Formats: sequence, structure tokens, C-alpha cells
Amino acid sequence: MDLKQYLKQKCELVDQALERFLPHGKELPASLHGSMRYSVFAGGKRVRPVLLLAACEAVGGELNSALPAACAMEMIHTYSLIHDDLPAMDNDDFRRGNPTNHKVYGEATAILAGDALLTEAFILLSCNGEGMEPGARLRVIHEIAHASGSRGMVGGQMVDMESEGKHDIDMATLSYIHTHKTGALIRASVRAGAILGGANEETFDALTRYADAIGLAFQIADDVLDVEGTTEELGKDAGSDQARGKATYPALVGLEASKRRAEELVQIALNALEPFDERAEPLRAIASYIVKRKS
Amino acid sequence: MDLKQYLKQKCELVDQALERFLPHGKELPASLHGSMRYSVFAGGKRVRPVLLLAACEAVGGELNSALPAACAMEMIHTYSLIHDDLPAMDNDDFRRGNPTNHKVYGEATAILAGDALLTEAFILLSCNGEGMEPGARLRVIHEIAHASGSRGMVGGQMVDMESEGKHDIDMATLSYIHTHKTGALIRASVRAGAILGGANEETFDALTRYADAIGLAFQIADDVLDVEGTTEELGKDAGSDQARGKATYPALVGLEASKRRAEELVQIALNALEPFDERAEPLRAIASYIVKRKS
Repeated sequence: MDLKQYLKQKCELVDQALERFLPHGKELPASLHGSMRYSVFAGGKRVRPVLLLAACEAVGGELNSALPAACAMEMIHTYSLIHDDLPAMDNDDFRRGNPTNHKVYGEATAILAGDALLTEAFILLSCNGEGMEPGARLRVIHEIAHASGSRGMVGGQMVDMESEGKHDIDMATLSYIHTHKTGALIRASVRAGAILGGANEETFDALTRYADAIGLAFQIADDVLDVEGTTEELGKDAGSDQARGKATYPALVGLEASKRRAEELVQIALNALEPFDERAEPLRAIASYIVKRKS
Repeated sequence: MDLKQYLKQKCELVDQALERFLPHGKELPASLHGSMRYSVFAGGKRVRPVLLLAACEAVGGELNSALPAACAMEMIHTYSLIHDDLPAMDNDDFRRGNPTNHKVYGEATAILAGDALLTEAFILLSCNGEGMEPGARLRVIHEIAHASGSRGMVGGQMVDMESEGKHDIDMATLSYIHTHKTGALIRASVRAGAILGGANEETFDALTRYADAIGLAFQIADDVLDVEGTTEELGKDAGSDQARGKATYPALVGLEASKRRAEELVQIALNALEPFDERAEPLRAIASYIVKRKS
């Protein structure tokens, strides 16, 4: 299959839906809505929404029923980036080659824009959906909220922050950071897509195994890219993890072992998809792409 | 009825439930969970949860079915205080006589604790509730999310922040701040309680009118207290609104007119409750208490 074409199509679908679902940039308070939109439309790759839609398709679901949840995932991801970039946190001036939210709108607005995007996700998830069973929608909200909270993404960010500059981070801590900070939202994206697509218990479990494997592969590949990529390709400073004393997979087990581990995880993800038919082709292609990408 | 006794009972119920629903302070990441708990248990008056429970009771609902939503409201209120107190926002060192979250845990943790509390509210709201109809629970989530977001509380905070220090704030802007920054959560509390208690359309509308009236009365009374109260009574600096150049009701229409307006609003709230039986007594007592309180 043509993954590039697939990703392009799905990104357009997600971007159009985000455009529709987000408050208009002129709606009051305009500075707040402008700030929310600035970061949502700052060139993200829409990894989480695409995974959610692809998981929904893989179990034979309707794309339209999954689109609000896909956009909700992107809003949550974007809010986490806005807050992570704040001076009190990672203090980043650039993100994807653009000035970070607080550099453009100021710290206070950036904090509120992040808060509002997180909240907007739950507004969207609880909206009147056409035909979706309320019980399934509650399950999706719970899945996504749990993955985003103190036992998920925020917990991962907390431990990542506490670990910075320490030179004795072990694999257990690094693994906690990976599975929580990035893994949790990837897992929730795939599982939410599966629920909305009407997955049975068996396919739901298989997709969970797929998600956990690619979530970790994605993070290891990110760490590898930070070592091997160029600043131009990454849209941020190459080697920034190392400069900052961040614990990374290559720093703990070496570059080659990291690459091997990422490849193994892709294979685990593909094996989990064994019982699925051709509707899982996009998920398979995404798994393989993760370790080949350059940014 | 004995309001003091009623408030004490309900506060204990809410505190016990919060204790149960919040992640344990020793659960990893312990600093994050400790920080969340620090602010939740920093002596709040539990106004929103009590209103939610009282509204549920007023329409003949079961308290237990409303307790998770009551706690969720308090988590959202607490998160908003943590973020409002941040140096980039109001830069407050004390809240209710205690050091603010970021003074104890640092800015980064305070930001994340706020994020996690907001998320925790939606985890709780989407949990398996016993016997509650999923459609009603989705409606409650939507109500609360909408009230908390950019068209609700966060929007109010944004406009409040933008208005600070300006000397030409008009009544329209002040009214926007009041109805959004504090009014939206009070309205959502009452309406969520009504939905969970099984209100019909008519009682739901009456309770909405009640909520809007006491929400505004509450805010005007707060502004009046800031002028008339002592620092000791308030647990924060008296006159701090004025010192900061905040737009307030007394500053715009004068102290006496403000007090009269608050009294009128209490009357509007009581009128809205006219068709209700004795189960609405707590709501009536709360309305009257709002303009009499000293802190």
C-alpha cells in the first residue's frame, strides 16, 4: 500500500475536522482561541489521530464515528507540548521549527491555552455523536482520560523531569518514562479506535499489543533520531537530549542495540496483527515506517 | 434547617470521597500525587460539590450517584486555583492562609498537578458508575467540560487577566468575567446534580436560573468581602483586588448598590425554587448564606 498517500489523506481529514471542532480564532477571548489554534496547526504529524482512525478501520468501523476522538487525541497531545515547552518545564523556544506557544502569546496565555485544549478534548468526546452507543463513548473517555493523567502521560512527564540531569537513570525508570510519557497516548489512540470501530475482546487485546510495541519502538526511534538526525530534519536541535542530560535508550544500551530493539518491537507489532485481514494494512505500514522515518 | 450542620456533613462526605478517589500520596510519581493532594486538602469550602449534592437531593436523587461528579467539580476548581496562583498568572504566594502549590512543590510540578487534577476529574466522571444511565453520564461530562473550557472558566480567567490594571473595564466585561470565571462552574455543579438526580426539563431549567443567580451573587459578595473583610477572616490580603487594579462590582457601581444587587439575586434564586418542596431547603439556605458569609 501507499503509506505516504494514506497519511496525507488522513491528515487532511483530521485537519479539516480540527478546523471545524475548534472554537473559531475570532471568537472571544480571541487571544486564547488564537493561541490554541496556533499550536494545533503548527505542523504536527497527526500520529495519534491517524493511529486511532487506522485502528477503527482495521476492525471494520466507520471513520466518521472515530473522527471526534481522533481530534481529541491531537488536542491532548498539543496541550502537553505547550505545557512541556514552558520556561518552568523544558524551556523550549522552538518546536517543529516555529516559536513555541509561550514565545508568541506569553506564558499565562500558553498555560491557559493548554488547559483549554485538554478540556476541549473532553467537550468533543462527550458531544452528541450520531449513532454511537453511549456506553462505548464512556469507555473511550475513560481510556483517554486515564492515559492522559497522573498514571499516564502527566506521570511520565513528571518522572522525565525529575530524571533530567541525573546520571544514574536505570532501565526501569527509562521504561516508565517511555510507556507513560508517549506510550500511554499511543495505546489510548489505538484502543479508542478499536472500541469505536466495534472490536471484540480478542481484536481489542491484539491491537493493545500492537500499540504497546509501536509506542516503545516510536520512542526508541525518536531517541536514535536525536543522535543521528540533523537539526534541519528534526526541526529542533539535534543532540538536544544528550546536551540536556536526558536519559535515552542509546545512552543506556548503545546505538546499535537500540536500533535492534526497535526492529524487534516492529516485528512484535506485526505479529499481533497476524489474524487481521487487509484492512489492517495501514497499521502494518505505520509500524514499519516508525523505524525508517527521518524526523 | 441547620445549614452549618448540613454543610459540615456534606463536606465530610466529599472529603472522604476525595480521599478515596484521588491517587494515594505514596503512589508514583509521589511528588505529583502529593502535590495534587496538597491543594485538594488545603481547606476549601467545597461550595461546588455541596451545590451539586444539594441539587441532586432537591430533585429526589440518590447522593451516592452524585458523589463522583461532586468530587470531580472540586478537582477542577482546585486545578484552576493552582494554575491561577502561578507566577506567570496571579503570582500568589498564599491561598487560604497556606503557601500556594508552586511555593511548596515548584512551578513545574504545580503546572503538572493542575493538569493531572483536571484530567482526574474526567477519569472519575467516566468511571463505571453503579446504575447510572450512560446517556445521563455523558450529558454530565459535557456540561462540566463545557463549563470548564475556553467558553467557560478558562475563558473567564483569560479575560480577567487581560483586564487587570485597565481602568476602563465596563459592566459587560465584568459580567463576562463573573459569569465565566466563577459562574460557569457553579451553574455546571447545580445542573450536573440535577441531571444525576433525574430532573425533568422544567426543574432543570428552574435550577439553572437558581444557579445563575447565586453564581453572580456569590461573586459580588466576594468583591464586597474583599473591600469589607479583614485579612484574618479572608485568609488572603484584604483589599487585594483593589491593590491589583482588578475590576470589581463595588468599583463599578459602588458598595451599597453592590450589596443591594446581591440581595436581589438571592431573591431571584429563591423565586426559582418556589415550585420545589422541602427537599430544596438546603439550596434555599445556601442562597441566603452567600451574602451573609464573612469569608
